[in-house]
Amino acid sequence: MAHRKKSKEAALCCEQTIRVRFSEVDSMQVVWHGEYMRYFEDGREEFGRRYRGLGYDDIARSGFLAPVVDATLQFKRPLRMNDEAVIETRYIDSEAAKICFEYTIRRSSDGEISATGTTMQVFVDQNYELCLLQPEFFSEWRNRWIK
Amino acid sequence: MAHRKKSKEAALCCEQTIRVRFSEVDSMQVVWHGEYMRYFEDGREEFGRRYRGLGYDDIARSGFLAPVVDATLQFKRPLRMNDEAVIETRYIDSEAAKICFEYTIRRSSDGEISATGTTMQVFVDQNYELCLLQPEFFSEWRNRWIK
Amino acid sequence: MAHRKKSKEAALCCEQTIRVRFSEVDSMQVVWHGEYMRYFEDGREEFGRRYRGLGYDDIARSGFLAPVVDATLQFKRPLRMNDEAVIETRYIDSEAAKICFEYTIRRSSDGEISATGTTMQVFVDQNYELCLLQPEFFSEWRNRWIK
Amino acid sequence: MAHRKKSKEAALCCEQTIRVRFSEVDSMQVVWHGEYMRYFEDGREEFGRRYRGLGYDDIARSGFLAPVVDATLQFKRPLRMNDEAVIETRYIDSEAAKICFEYTIRRSSDGEISATGTTMQVFVDQNYELCLLQPEFFSEWRNRWIK
Repeated sequence: MAHRKKSKEAALCCEQTIRVRFSEVDSMQVVWHGEYMRYFEDGREEFGRRYRGLGYDDIARSGFLAPVVDATLQFKRPLRMNDEAVIETRYIDSEAAKICFEYTIRRSSDGEISATGTTMQVFVDQNYELCLLQPEFFSEWRNRWIK
Repeated sequence: MAHRKKSKEAALCCEQTIRVRFSEVDSMQVVWHGEYMRYFEDGREEFGRRYRGLGYDDIARSGFLAPVVDATLQFKRPLRMNDEAVIETRYIDSEAAKICFEYTIRRSSDGEISATGTTMQVFVDQNYELCLLQPEFFSEWRNRWIK
Repeated sequence: MAHRKKSKEAALCCEQTIRVRFSEVDSMQVVWHGEYMRYFEDGREEFGRRYRGLGYDDIARSGFLAPVVDATLQFKRPLRMNDEAVIETRYIDSEAAKICFEYTIRRSSDGEISATGTTMQVFVDQNYELCLLQPEFFSEWRNRWIK
Repeated sequence: MAHRKKSKEAALCCEQTIRVRFSEVDSMQVVWHGEYMRYFEDGREEFGRRYRGLGYDDIARSGFLAPVVDATLQFKRPLRMNDEAVIETRYIDSEAAKICFEYTIRRSSDGEISATGTTMQVFVDQNYELCLLQPEFFSEWRNRWIK
């Protein structure tokens, strides 16, 4: 993924505790692997609330959308019914017109890693045309939180 | 539910075959009960294609939305991994400004009823204000298919 | 629904606060109606934690399953992206071999009711055979919490 | 991904047509990106039916599970309400104790690629212990279809 600026952005990270729901567990008695895309999104939404200005609402109000264009997931250990887990969401800064996150999901009971992953989002305008440059609202967000 | 007009609407019915997906099966090895709301919606969408003019797209193009305001579900026998089932969707006509359906889901292998249910939709405009009278496009749809 | 014993069971109620997730919102910009089945289940799971002994795990350990056999949902006002809501789950006691709940979901910001509903669960054994009498663990649970 | 044997396995590929469901579309009016994990799974299940012996059921009957341990997704163009799409699922053979697939999802109307991706599954026994060697049933499956 993107080259990292080893400065302030190390701090751009948030944690959120979730509990496995019955409907997320599959017939193998573990959380269905597809649910982790939702956990990652939960992490991003929490990040957007913690670091004001990068939530779906904020982006939409600025006239843009930020669809996920790339995702990777590595599953280490299954989560099971009633498990609690912590979603750690880390922002990876770059000069490009995109938003990159890394995720680590750990089982609360013992801290063991359940899954890791990444997502990359780009900016599109209301006509779904790709933005090649960082939208102004995003530059301002970076100025506020990164630089 | 609504009083039925015992005329032409008996014919307003469609069937759709679906196959249980792995992600729909819960840890009890049966289709999670919440998935049936999706099956009912699959049935309504198929109905909208079969009886042109009542799909989500058609309704939206006419300037309305038709949110579900009431649903009932009765679960008779579980569906399991790889089962095929038939969703039967029956339109229940009424003079009111609403759309009512009844559903029967049968396992294909033996015709046994897996679940039954009903939904009622009302019409709201773009401001989410309730329509007390049938929108014109819906009256026309009824003229075309019912009367 | 079941005749209510107007005694202690009025107290058998729990509340849980949830926040609408992006993936729960449909193209009409409101929570997809099918998600409320999940909210109800969230409520039941919280209830099972609050009133020890009635969670999926407890039931399974006792050698039974408690599938939902009937559900009703009434949708009053839509929930939207980022809304917080409170799921109130009320146990409705009966002498029959079933578990009945009523639900009320309120938007946190103004207390307005978003949806109400009911579920009924029966007991089946490991062969999915219906239990006509209350399983012993359930009688004990009722003795502990109701009587 | 794995080195490919350029022999018979080029043929190990299947296609499945799906139609976007209302509940899969998010508030940006496009299929929610997490749904593609389900589309990939739909593709694998179809593959398991086409090339007998590699379905979830077959694997379970042999005493194993094959959880997904790695997944990648690249999103190219959004799918929208009522779009039809074709899921192409290609088996990528290897001597290791794993099952690898590549996926391409194309919009039916114009053949444009909507998304691509990969999954890797490993074998675990009933105690969720990793199998370092290919289970016998899988060697036999490969003998039948690949060699």
